[in-house]
Parts: sequence; C-alpha cells; structure tokens
Amino acid sequence: MKNHYYSFNSIYDPSSLIRRGLEMKQKKVISEIGKNKTIGLVFLNPSLRTRMSTHEAANRLSLHVITFNGQDAWSWEMEEGAIMNVNKTEHIKDAARVISSYVDIIGIRCFAGLKDIEEDRNDTVIKKFMSYSSVPVINLESAALHPCQSLADMITMREIYGEKKLKVALTWAPHPKALPQAVAQSFSQWAIGMGHDVVIAHPEGYDLDTSFTTGAKITHDQEEAIRGVDIVYAKSWTSEIDYGKATTAYNNWTLNDQKMELSDGGRFMHCLPIRRNVVATDEVLDSYQSLIYTQAENRLYAAQAIIEKILKSEQ
Amino acid sequence: MKNHYYSFNSIYDPSSLIRRGLEMKQKKVISEIGKNKTIGLVFLNPSLRTRMSTHEAANRLSLHVITFNGQDAWSWEMEEGAIMNVNKTEHIKDAARVISSYVDIIGIRCFAGLKDIEEDRNDTVIKKFMSYSSVPVINLESAALHPCQSLADMITMREIYGEKKLKVALTWAPHPKALPQAVAQSFSQWAIGMGHDVVIAHPEGYDLDTSFTTGAKITHDQEEAIRGVDIVYAKSWTSEIDYGKATTAYNNWTLNDQKMELSDGGRFMHCLPIRRNVVATDEVLDSYQSLIYTQAENRLYAAQAIIEKILKSEQ
Amino acid sequence: MKNHYYSFNSIYDPSSLIRRGLEMKQKKVISEIGKNKTIGLVFLNPSLRTRMSTHEAANRLSLHVITFNGQDAWSWEMEEGAIMNVNKTEHIKDAARVISSYVDIIGIRCFAGLKDIEEDRNDTVIKKFMSYSSVPVINLESAALHPCQSLADMITMREIYGEKKLKVALTWAPHPKALPQAVAQSFSQWAIGMGHDVVIAHPEGYDLDTSFTTGAKITHDQEEAIRGVDIVYAKSWTSEIDYGKATTAYNNWTLNDQKMELSDGGRFMHCLPIRRNVVATDEVLDSYQSLIYTQAENRLYAAQAIIEKILKSEQ
Repeated sequence: MKNHYYSFNSIYDPSSLIRRGLEMKQKKVISEIGKNKTIGLVFLNPSLRTRMSTHEAANRLSLHVITFNGQDAWSWEMEEGAIMNVNKTEHIKDAARVISSYVDIIGIRCFAGLKDIEEDRNDTVIKKFMSYSSVPVINLESAALHPCQSLADMITMREIYGEKKLKVALTWAPHPKALPQAVAQSFSQWAIGMGHDVVIAHPEGYDLDTSFTTGAKITHDQEEAIRGVDIVYAKSWTSEIDYGKATTAYNNWTLNDQKMELSDGGRFMHCLPIRRNVVATDEVLDSYQSLIYTQAENRLYAAQAIIEKILKSEQ
Repeated sequence: MKNHYYSFNSIYDPSSLIRRGLEMKQKKVISEIGKNKTIGLVFLNPSLRTRMSTHEAANRLSLHVITFNGQDAWSWEMEEGAIMNVNKTEHIKDAARVISSYVDIIGIRCFAGLKDIEEDRNDTVIKKFMSYSSVPVINLESAALHPCQSLADMITMREIYGEKKLKVALTWAPHPKALPQAVAQSFSQWAIGMGHDVVIAHPEGYDLDTSFTTGAKITHDQEEAIRGVDIVYAKSWTSEIDYGKATTAYNNWTLNDQKMELSDGGRFMHCLPIRRNVVATDEVLDSYQSLIYTQAENRLYAAQAIIEKILKSEQ
Repeated sequence: MKNHYYSFNSIYDPSSLIRRGLEMKQKKVISEIGKNKTIGLVFLNPSLRTRMSTHEAANRLSLHVITFNGQDAWSWEMEEGAIMNVNKTEHIKDAARVISSYVDIIGIRCFAGLKDIEEDRNDTVIKKFMSYSSVPVINLESAALHPCQSLADMITMREIYGEKKLKVALTWAPHPKALPQAVAQSFSQWAIGMGHDVVIAHPEGYDLDTSFTTGAKITHDQEEAIRGVDIVYAKSWTSEIDYGKATTAYNNWTLNDQKMELSDGGRFMHCLPIRRNVVATDEVLDSYQSLIYTQAENRLYAAQAIIEKILKSEQ
C-alpha cells in the first residue's frame, strides 16, 4: 500500500513525528530532501492555514508546489459504473490517476458534504482518491478527519508541556453554521492515541463517530468536563441527529473566562478560523492561556514533518 | 515572427519533437535550461491536466511559473477601436503587451465561445494575443486547436507503435454538453501531418473545419470507420449546423467493446476528462486497449518538449 | 515598528529607491537575497499587473511565493469585540497573525469598499492588517493608496526625463464605473513629494483627500491644467459627494489628441487597465507620447526594489 497520511493510524511512531515537528520549529530546518520533486495541493474547499502552511512546508523541503483549486470548476463523479450524462465532469478515479502521474505527493482537501452522515463518516471521497492515486496522499481535511491539524495540536501540547500525559477537555461550542466533525474527531483520536486523559463535552445528540472517541469520557456537562483539566479544546460541530443543520440552542456553551477558571490553569486551544465571542470570548482568545496562534504556526511544522516522513519512506 | 507554438504548422520537424518528448519520459529529464526565466500560464477557462502538466514541465526545466486565472475577473475587449464603456475591462492588446513584459514565455488557454462558428474557427483570441505578445506564446487550447494535447497523443502513439504509419479512426461521440472542436481538429491535423491513414466518423452536420481534415476520409458510418484500424480516438464536438447546441440524438455512438472489436486489436484514445458510459463504456476505458492514462501522463512530456524547444530557439 | 511599505512616507530616501528600480531594469538584476525566504501575496481583490509583477520581482530575488486569493472565500471581521455570529468567518487580527507566522513578507491588496468615504480614507483594513502582522507588509493597493503603482510611475518619469523637476497634470477622466481614489491620491503624494509641479483637474465634487494633494494646484478646467505640462496623468475616480456612484456627466473629459497638443510635447500616463476611447482615445494611447506600457513594465522593477529594500532592512 502507498504511504498515505490519512489519520493517526497511518503513523507507526506518532511520538517521534511530533518530536521531529517540534525540532523543525526550533532549528528552522531547511533541507534539500524534496529537490526535483513536486507536491500537488488539491483544494476542493477553501483554505488559508492549510494552503499556506503546507506550501511553506514544501518550500522548506525544496519541493515544487502545484496548487489546484477544484471547488469552482470540477465536480467529481464518485459512483462506479455511473452513466455520467448529467453534471459530473470527471470520475474521481480518472482525476486521481492523472494528477498522480504529474506529481510525487498529493495533498487533498475534501470537506464533509454535511448531507449524509454515513457518507461523511465513511470518508468516501478521500478513500477513493487514495485508492486510485499512484503516489502518497496527505489528508488536508477530509469528511471525517483533519490529521494535519491534529499533529499541529500535538506539537503544540508537547511544546508547552513536554511528554507529560495531560487532562484534556474537548468541548463543543456554538457557531452560526453547521460545521464538520473532522477536527474534533481527529483531535480526539490523536489525544487518546497519545495517552492523554480525554473528556468530551457536548449537548445531547451531538455525538461524534465512536471510532475516534473510544477511550474518552463523554459528558453533556461542559463545566464538569473542564474542571481540573490542563487543556480546553473548543470546537463546534454539527449534530448527529439534525445532521448538517445549525442551531442557536446551547448558546450558553460559549467558552469564557469563568469557565476557563474551572480548569487547572488550563490552556485554551482552537484550530481557527474562529467566530470570536461565539465559540469563545475575546478575553479567552487573547489571554495568556490561549494557544491559538501557536497551533496555527505549528501547522507549518506539522506539514513539514509529514512531508519529510513521506519523502524518506519513498527513498 | 515570434517563436509561437500555435499548431502543427508551428513546428519545423514534428517527428523530432515527438522523439524528444518520449526521450524526456524515458530518461526523466531534469534540466537547468529555464533557470532565471519565467513562464506565465494564463487560464481564461478551467484546466486540470493542462495546468498541472505544463506547470510540472516548467518545474523540470527550472523555470519559474506564474499562473493567472482570468476567467472570473477579466473579460477582454477584442475589437480594435471599441468604445469600452460597457463591461469589458481591458483590451486584449494591452493585456498581451503587459503580460509579455513580465515573463519569458506565455501559455494561454482560451476556449471556443461556441456562439459564432466563424469567430471560433478564425481563432481570433489567441491570434490577437500572439500578435501583441512580445514573447513566445504556447497554445494551451484555443477556440480551434489543442496542439499540446495532440503532441501528447503523437508521443503516445510513438510509444506504443514506434514510427509505424497507423490506421486511425477519429470518431465523434455523445456528450450531454456541446463541446469545442479543438481537440478533434488538432488531432486530425497532427495525425494526417505525421502520415497516418485517418478516417473521421461523425453524424451528418458535425463536420470539422476542413483546414484540418483535408487528407482524411470522412464517413457518417462509425462502424465502417473503426473496422480494421489500429487506433480509435473518440471525442465529442458540437454540430456545425446547430453550433453550440447539445443533442441527445446519436446516443448510439457511444464507444463500447462490440465496436472496439471491429478494429484490428485497436487501442482506444481520449483526451480526458471523459463522461464515462456516455462517450465510451467503462469496459473500453478500463480495458488493456485503453491509452487514456498514458495520453494524460504524456501531456507532461509534450509540454516539456515544447517549452525546451522554445527556450533553445530563443537562445 | 515593522518595516512596512505603506505609502510615500514609508520610505526614507525615495529618490534612491527610484534609482535602484531603474538600475534593476537596466541591469536585469537577479539576486539570491531572498533565498530560503517566502513572500505571501494576499489578494482580496482581482489583480493582473500587481499579481504578475510582484511574483516575478520575487522570483528575481530568489524568494518563494505563496499566493492567497481571499476574494471568494473569506470576509474578514474588522471590528474589535464583534460578536461574529453572522457572515464574517475570521477576524482580521487572527488572519494577519496567522499569515505572518508562515512567511517573511506579506503583500496585500484590499480595495476601497466605495461605500463609506471615511472608512476608505482611513484605510482601516490595511492599517489593521499591518498592526497585527509580525512581518513587513507591502501595500499592493489599499482603499486610499497604491504606492507600488506610484513608484513605477516615478521610475518611468525618471527613465524618460532623468532627475528634472516636471510640470505634471493629474486629470480625472470618465469611466462607466465608480473607481477608487487610491491611484490618483498616491500619484499625487509621490509627484508632490518628489518635487514636481503638480496640477490636479477634476469636475466639481471630485476632490481627493487633501492629505495627499496639499501642494498641488486644483482646478476644474481640464484644458487649463494640461497647458504646457510635461506629463498628463489620466485616471478616473469616484465623486466625493456621490461617493461610489458612477456618472455619465463629464464625458467630455476623455483625453484626446487635441487636448494632448495643449501640453508641452507632454507624455501620457495611465496605470492600466484602461477603458479605451472612454478614459482616453486610441490615438493618445497608441501614440509615441504614451507611456502606458513602460509604466506597466516598470511595476516589476518597482516591486523588486521595494522587496529588496525590505529584505536588506530586515537583515
């Protein structure tokens, strides 16, 4: 099988990948390992952090970068055997094979459609794309997972706390739009996988895919979850029941100073972009405890560590 | 005159260009011939294969690449002397002169408008652009021709069959949308120009521009055309009569196994993207005879050979 | 304070920057000063000249380039303390901090909104962005100013006339759309700042921000302004009274040969793109006196001089 970076389980030794990411930051690693190679970045959805951090990571490893924005121009057929006489212009198997004939690594972003929870949880698009690609694929956020964000999150926790096992609360938060579950699920998978003590708080009906949360304590009491933790990770995600529908119920789940004080001097985390004073208050985001900019910056080193690892495996 | 790559006729020795493309594939040529030079890629229409293959070709020749997506933001005035007080924001002569003052080579994609057949066949946009550009221009698919695709097709045929003169059937195929005639016309021009024995099959009223088909046999009987050939090249294009209108008549022109069996063990070709089970069946596309992925991959080496040739001519 | 390039006043010695730009053109300077560094180009509005010239300038200084097109995907919240529960997806302070953690220099384009003249004149967006960025920011046209264009204009004037102090007429011109005042204000600021004798002609109610025009003579008589000058710089901009509204009054302000003959053999300048035969006639634009293509080409050397200056200051 190709050496894809799809999820936590794609990595044999996640701890050393985290360590390498942190080392890349501390030493500002520039290398020629990617010389005369090219990474293709395929965005089926908008991207700022992922786009820029992955591009810069590739720069630092001397890779060429080709960016393809598919969101406007292309809609890929997913079904085997489909009679493509309506509006899908290309089959994903053709696109994946062709793109992988031009480049050495592919990064692809393909968000959850937020219409069919089974389809999103099955992560159909990226799994098909990986199966047809002849080169390694990096998951730049799929329907179900966002492992580049999670690695950056783990690098951030390592940077602050070292190898200590932490008490971590992952808490749902309000948002005017229905958002995918990928960031939350991926963070949960990594935090549990790295041996941290994880509690997940969300309103009833907002359950994540248990494939990624087994090992975490689940509660519907946000304050109980936060009490005594080292890390409060906030994220909004769509309901499991009213999948893809936004809600204004639970607006009292906004993270504020009062809630943060229940933690054990805990640090605040979020993947950005963030709706200020909706997901969390300015006071929390701009406080000493906030790690949001460190997380965003560490996206660069996470991407660099992942790409380097793939290049080394392919040698 | 500038050293443009506009059509088959732009090349003094097409056979050696084909050979060089194939050599670039076999040796995976990486060179510094384009060092400190820049290619500008101007897309007035969407592009995946062309965009990525041309970009990677430039990478391998050490050129910088600047991509400009004009489709959303710009609409160019074509008329000399126009009073530009409506919605055209820039005259093509200004755009061409300005872009050519920043880069060493320009690749431009400007599809057929599919409204006025004379305008499309005259290839007004790219011809004006070339006339105003102070640097060589590569045709990345104009209204009338797609010579980068055709060179990739010729490289593919050379790769499979060597220098042998082949029996080639170019056949019209169904499609839910009206499509330009550029790929078909350009393939015809190249295949005839390279001395192959070309038959073109299409329904009545679907004639291509005879400038590019003289020397080919024309028939309205698809099966007759395919009988005994080495290559079946399928492509949909719009009617000459109902120019720019799609049709559901002739849905029986879909290429399938039964039809392919009429050929002499013939290989199937198509430029992609393809509407599966409309233009051709999955059975054909996924068969041993299908060359669609080889053609797509060879876009890279075609582009690399073209750019190298231009750089050498400019030295 | 960070070493931003925001306006004429950002530069300690503008004359030597102009000289360096011209030298870069004459010697075709290629340097490694930007090696292992990256410039991020953020476009919140469309761009052809600015995009390509700045990218090529970066190429020639060996910088990596990452381009981010924000116009479609992002709308940034500008207000401190806003409750972001409507349609703004990210606060500008988060975007600026994050982007500046990935790159060494940022160029940003953020046009006038043309709704609120005070907001545009205060140049809120770029000023906030600069204040939150941790790296130098280059103004690629803000609501109020376009200093890259103006530097190119000054390089052009230096190229033609040397260090001579010139008589310069900046004249309003007709246009089917309401346009920002940035180019005109910035040109005025630079031309006055460089010691030229500037007269500005516009219809009543079309005053520019006096912060940038103090020192110029203002008139409502276009012909009087042009009489005897060395340079006629034409540009359309929106009314101060009916801010953001287009007009068809004053269509007699189109620049033509007859008017140009009033000048002292004056050269014609415009920043492009230009509405031909609306802003100025083809006769003027295509005449020997027209400097429009030289100005556009000099955008490259202006950008190169600016980036080099920032890189040297940061060393």
